[in-house]
Amino acid sequence: MFEAAEVGNTIDKATYKKAAVKIREALLNVQRELAGSKHSVVVIVAGVEGTGKPELVNLLLEWMDARGIETHSMWNPSDEERERPPYWRFWRVLPPRGRMAVFFDSWYTSPIINRVFKRTDQAEFDQELSDIADFEEMLVRENVIVLKFWMHVSKSFQKMRLKELEADKRTRWRVNKTDWQYFDKYDSFRESSEHALRKTSTSEAPWHIVEASDERYRTLTVAKTILETLSKKMEQSRGQPAIKAQPDRPKPARRNLISHLDNALKLGAKEYGGELDRLYEKINRLTRKLYEKRRSLICVFEGPDAAGKGGAIRRLIGAIDARQYTVHSVAAPTDEERVRPYLWRFWRNIPRLGRVTIFDRSWYGRVLVERIEGFCAPEDWKRAYSEINAFEEQVARFGIHVVKFWLDVTADEQLRRFNDREITPYKQYKLTEEDWRNREKFDAYTAAACDMIEKTSTEVAPWILVEANDKYWARIKILKTVCKTLEKTLEE
Amino acid sequence: MFEAAEVGNTIDKATYKKAAVKIREALLNVQRELAGSKHSVVVIVAGVEGTGKPELVNLLLEWMDARGIETHSMWNPSDEERERPPYWRFWRVLPPRGRMAVFFDSWYTSPIINRVFKRTDQAEFDQELSDIADFEEMLVRENVIVLKFWMHVSKSFQKMRLKELEADKRTRWRVNKTDWQYFDKYDSFRESSEHALRKTSTSEAPWHIVEASDERYRTLTVAKTILETLSKKMEQSRGQPAIKAQPDRPKPARRNLISHLDNALKLGAKEYGGELDRLYEKINRLTRKLYEKRRSLICVFEGPDAAGKGGAIRRLIGAIDARQYTVHSVAAPTDEERVRPYLWRFWRNIPRLGRVTIFDRSWYGRVLVERIEGFCAPEDWKRAYSEINAFEEQVARFGIHVVKFWLDVTADEQLRRFNDREITPYKQYKLTEEDWRNREKFDAYTAAACDMIEKTSTEVAPWILVEANDKYWARIKILKTVCKTLEKTLEE
Repeated sequence: MFEAAEVGNTIDKATYKKAAVKIREALLNVQRELAGSKHSVVVIVAGVEGTGKPELVNLLLEWMDARGIETHSMWNPSDEERERPPYWRFWRVLPPRGRMAVFFDSWYTSPIINRVFKRTDQAEFDQELSDIADFEEMLVRENVIVLKFWMHVSKSFQKMRLKELEADKRTRWRVNKTDWQYFDKYDSFRESSEHALRKTSTSEAPWHIVEASDERYRTLTVAKTILETLSKKMEQSRGQPAIKAQPDRPKPARRNLISHLDNALKLGAKEYGGELDRLYEKINRLTRKLYEKRRSLICVFEGPDAAGKGGAIRRLIGAIDARQYTVHSVAAPTDEERVRPYLWRFWRNIPRLGRVTIFDRSWYGRVLVERIEGFCAPEDWKRAYSEINAFEEQVARFGIHVVKFWLDVTADEQLRRFNDREITPYKQYKLTEEDWRNREKFDAYTAAACDMIEKTSTEVAPWILVEANDKYWARIKILKTVCKTLEKTLEE
Repeated sequence: MFEAAEVGNTIDKATYKKAAVKIREALLNVQRELAGSKHSVVVIVAGVEGTGKPELVNLLLEWMDARGIETHSMWNPSDEERERPPYWRFWRVLPPRGRMAVFFDSWYTSPIINRVFKRTDQAEFDQELSDIADFEEMLVRENVIVLKFWMHVSKSFQKMRLKELEADKRTRWRVNKTDWQYFDKYDSFRESSEHALRKTSTSEAPWHIVEASDERYRTLTVAKTILETLSKKMEQSRGQPAIKAQPDRPKPARRNLISHLDNALKLGAKEYGGELDRLYEKINRLTRKLYEKRRSLICVFEGPDAAGKGGAIRRLIGAIDARQYTVHSVAAPTDEERVRPYLWRFWRNIPRLGRVTIFDRSWYGRVLVERIEGFCAPEDWKRAYSEINAFEEQVARFGIHVVKFWLDVTADEQLRRFNDREITPYKQYKLTEEDWRNREKFDAYTAAACDMIEKTSTEVAPWILVEANDKYWARIKILKTVCKTLEKTLEE
């Protein structure tokens, strides 16, 4: 695979100069078009050390408009990053629409190094590569143009280059012990990198292997590839009509996961009070331990309007130290959120270790309200199931427990609560015209919820169906589940 | 001062229950009005340990709508926080309009503890308190409602309380060594706290000292104070017409800081080339050292359209490793930025240590374009000078050097460049209708710039006036200044 990048490509100065002038102008033009488009760009500059990656990027930044480009070196993770799942640090710097981000290190760095130094076995490595492929597929579908460059030189060339850098007083600082350590592992790096590139080179996010021994050839090759990829994408978008979002109103099966629930389940006031006290005390104790053990918990609440999400959340937080939890109420995205991949706004709210985070509505909005109201294209909500599963798996693998509650009320009970809200002064604010409109789609919501539960209830992030016609019953079931989840988390 | 909070206020259960029901409803109502207002709320819950601060906040969160409230415990700073000026961690969590943030620890915590343990002397303490007063004054002017509660109990009561907590198996974990250490310093804490409260209790952000020995009295007092303060503010806003923003078109003095510049200064192409190479090499070396020594540099570029800011920035970054700098181009704020105090969007871009950050236009927009175009009320740009000075001083005191360039071109030279842009294909995009309109206000911009330079050129963050009719001259002057600043930074 790398042999093709060891053939000795060079470009002479005159040719380079002439080509450079043209490419610069074209790059600036395409960058301007990009700025007004729905696309963002992620450029990964990876490869063998000592191939002038920083110089290359510097030059590109000089050629293009540096104000539209951010560079991320991703040195060692900060403690805020270490306290979140590994991809958090990449998510947090994903560029908004119209902009570019250049990554020196990327999601490839750790997997390859860990494999070379045998900290992972082949199966784990393959798992990581498959995660990468999924991640990049998601990026592409979210209108991110992914450009991946692998700077390659032969072993003998790298040795020569490192010695050259060391010999020059001005560049000596650039070579350190790690570089030689890595050089000693050249063959192993070559093998693992080749494997990684093969497994992650897709038609939408292909790897570009660049022979890096000649500076001019390297620069022009990268610049041209960027130019061609962006130009092609811009041209495609120009011709393409935007995919129309359209409402989808599924019909529920006569017998389904939700119709199955026994909504007559009830709890008496006295029993409720007793259970509540007992569970409060227990949850308080367990969440304190959670903090000490630096584990985290995410609770997701979904369900129709007036299902009692707010009340259940209020009971749950009553048991937890206020310094330890956060409640996120998910409403319309802000403009900073709207110009980035869908899951960005949830990733940014992943808590540090030792916390409880409660989502009052969540990333499931995409497969519920967005699907039904047509706020996104059918392709978008259809791919959301697997993206959400991958997201929750990453979170869970990092040791954050995820538990998801579907609070179910019947259409009749919802109507009763709406009417109640209408006549009770301090509840009126809770009821809007929209609630009445949504009621007409009650069946569609039920069907969408069934699809969602079926496709996203996993071992690591199960859906708990809560019979919520009786508020006492629902709250106690929720608190009990939280208790059990905390106990499980703390046992691990 | 604290004596009034040692008189033994209590409330009986029946009175409490009755009052609580009313207050809850009223709090929910005012919170709803807040949500739609231009105000945000910062609540500080400080005071003696063992006075049930977490329980108090838990209860408030249960009473109000927890989704509109964030709680910040501000335990030890993370490394990302430690690498920024101390107030950064508070800025980053300032609530947007319509929302509340509760701080357990706050900007008061370190100053008081440091004074008690004699890590600072009285003069330093007073300086910190005066910074706090300035900070809170700014918050208030930015429509933040600042509520400060000091929970007080007498020495004997605190001792009893700590022993009580220790004796109970369920609460034992809440008392640790630090609590007793602090208790031993009770008198000293009392003295320093009293001093701090006196110095920072203003009519707009007063301290509320709460007798905390009786749980019910404590809770109702705090809840009532929140309710009254918010209700009053909401009522005021309702009656008040919004202050109209209006354009201000100052006339420059005949002889002023800028008219003074010798815009005939020039540099030949050959001399330019030589200097450029020399300075590139030097800046590259110095910025590398900057990284090693973990110091930072912020460069601000301001000046009329077509003054050559972009070109100068491109030359500057050409000398620096791409992994080390960021260029921020300041345009219209995003909606997340618009709903927070003005300087928030600049604070969020303060770099970690070892970096160079370049602002292509900056926080000075407020006293330039916003003043002239009337994007903010006159009060807003008038107070901006001192707020900016305080901001830059904080940044500088933390060891980040700030250098600000005003690139000056004459009206004639600007016209020449505009015409040039109009006829050169690859420069046309740089010229918009707005540029021509702004040209009519050239004099007003000059006058505003003079005011700005006069009021904000400080020892720690000087303005460098750059004669920019000749691009070569301007660029070399800028690079030389950066060199000198880096050398000075590295010497410290």
